[in-house]
Amino acid sequence: MSGEVKQPLFDTITVVGVGLISGSLSLALKEKGLVRKVIGVSRTEETTQKALALGLIDEALPIEQAVPKSDLIYVAIPVDVMMPVTQRILDLVTDKQIVVDAGSTKHALCEFLAEHPMRRRFVASHPMWGTEYSGPEAAVHNAFVGRTCVICEKEKSDADAVAKVEEMYRALGMHLIYMDADSHDMHTAYISHISHITSFALANTVLEKEKEEDAIFELASGGFESTVRLAKSNPAMWVPIFMQNRENVLDVLNEHISQLRKFKACLEKENYGYLLQLIEDANKIRRIIK
Amino acid sequence: MSGEVKQPLFDTITVVGVGLISGSLSLALKEKGLVRKVIGVSRTEETTQKALALGLIDEALPIEQAVPKSDLIYVAIPVDVMMPVTQRILDLVTDKQIVVDAGSTKHALCEFLAEHPMRRRFVASHPMWGTEYSGPEAAVHNAFVGRTCVICEKEKSDADAVAKVEEMYRALGMHLIYMDADSHDMHTAYISHISHITSFALANTVLEKEKEEDAIFELASGGFESTVRLAKSNPAMWVPIFMQNRENVLDVLNEHISQLRKFKACLEKENYGYLLQLIEDANKIRRIIK
Repeated sequence: MSGEVKQPLFDTITVVGVGLISGSLSLALKEKGLVRKVIGVSRTEETTQKALALGLIDEALPIEQAVPKSDLIYVAIPVDVMMPVTQRILDLVTDKQIVVDAGSTKHALCEFLAEHPMRRRFVASHPMWGTEYSGPEAAVHNAFVGRTCVICEKEKSDADAVAKVEEMYRALGMHLIYMDADSHDMHTAYISHISHITSFALANTVLEKEKEEDAIFELASGGFESTVRLAKSNPAMWVPIFMQNRENVLDVLNEHISQLRKFKACLEKENYGYLLQLIEDANKIRRIIK
Repeated sequence: MSGEVKQPLFDTITVVGVGLISGSLSLALKEKGLVRKVIGVSRTEETTQKALALGLIDEALPIEQAVPKSDLIYVAIPVDVMMPVTQRILDLVTDKQIVVDAGSTKHALCEFLAEHPMRRRFVASHPMWGTEYSGPEAAVHNAFVGRTCVICEKEKSDADAVAKVEEMYRALGMHLIYMDADSHDMHTAYISHISHITSFALANTVLEKEKEEDAIFELASGGFESTVRLAKSNPAMWVPIFMQNRENVLDVLNEHISQLRKFKACLEKENYGYLLQLIEDANKIRRIIK
């Protein structure tokens, strides 16, 4: 539970994918003395060099050399490549090692790994923190603090592996919750994936209109920035998330369009009493966000 | 252009409506030594008492007593009451005084005041700054800095009145742009009003789903908070804005729904190439917001 520990929790970890999430994780673990050494695995030399220069990793190695040296392997890569890469890592680990993912979808991955002989060394997790930026330069200090981390299918992982992962996330200041993979995907469709779609669509709405006009750019105020911020998010990350969570996202998107149509109908029919009611309903979100 | 002045720009101003905008304006003018005294006019004793306690105003008076004592009268109230109140103030002023509004819509007000004998003492403005909170407690220090302020129909106001208002906004750190009232209303529909509707609708989408389930509240991360923050905004302010800017808002809302339908069609047809393209298009918003 405490943020400070005497003994490192891990001697060596490998982060597979060296970007926003694993870079921020690495910074946090190092700053808290929870790890002695971080090895980075990346597809590109450019990313590796940046991560070394930024102090996110201590060494860069190919995955086959990195895994055997590591107590824990943390996989934070787009969800379309998560399945083959995680499988490959599980093929390499012993029952003393732990593999954790940080993916934004859980059903497809958990199903894919279900029959792997080393499944019990894998812990499916999703730290609910991120920004609209990606790559090693996007890594920040003091990430994760006060946020929730979801652990899925806890019962399918070895107890010692889960305990270590829980200790790690708690040391970063995260609050843990547990759910099955399907529940995770349904909830994240509502709380994260739809926010990205509305931001992308809002950006396109404005950009479409303002092809010829620059005035709008000067007018953009805090409210606009807030609602459209996520539209800067990386398509290489988000297309695979929407693919894997297609049915849940479609459900929420249909609901969202129908909610927008209520606002449209109020304006068309000049039914301002109902418009007031819709906004008062929306104000109840204060219950969730302070 | 400078933030510091030797001589106060105004001896006494009156703020009509004592909330987020006028409270923040008052704080900024006082801190920069731009005004000696601020009188507040409010419909409720409770608001008046809070504003006095918070140091936003120095004295509270009825509008008829406040106006004659003031060099400038700043009106920041919901746009449904803006027209009669601004008219009443113009009925009271001399050609040595200035009346400014801070309303989020401009066409209806400018049209309403067009034939008023004192129209030239009125400057139509819209500082593009705000938060989702309202009331005197919502007032903050250092508001407005770096934001844009729109001045409409500059040519219909006396040059000395415009010059004073420009000097005031520039002293607060604002950048000024000029447009006609119709252009203002069209642009703000895109850059501000639609953001509020998407936030309200997103809040209702999530709240509708999560009536029975609490898990989602724990999962809410920064991205969700960002897109849904504006859903906390005050309906008493926003219903009148949507009423007055109904046609522009409907245009943008229709466009936004059609943009969302493109995302929906991509998912339904599993056309991920086009989905990637839509997201890459949305990324171009980086041009507008850093």
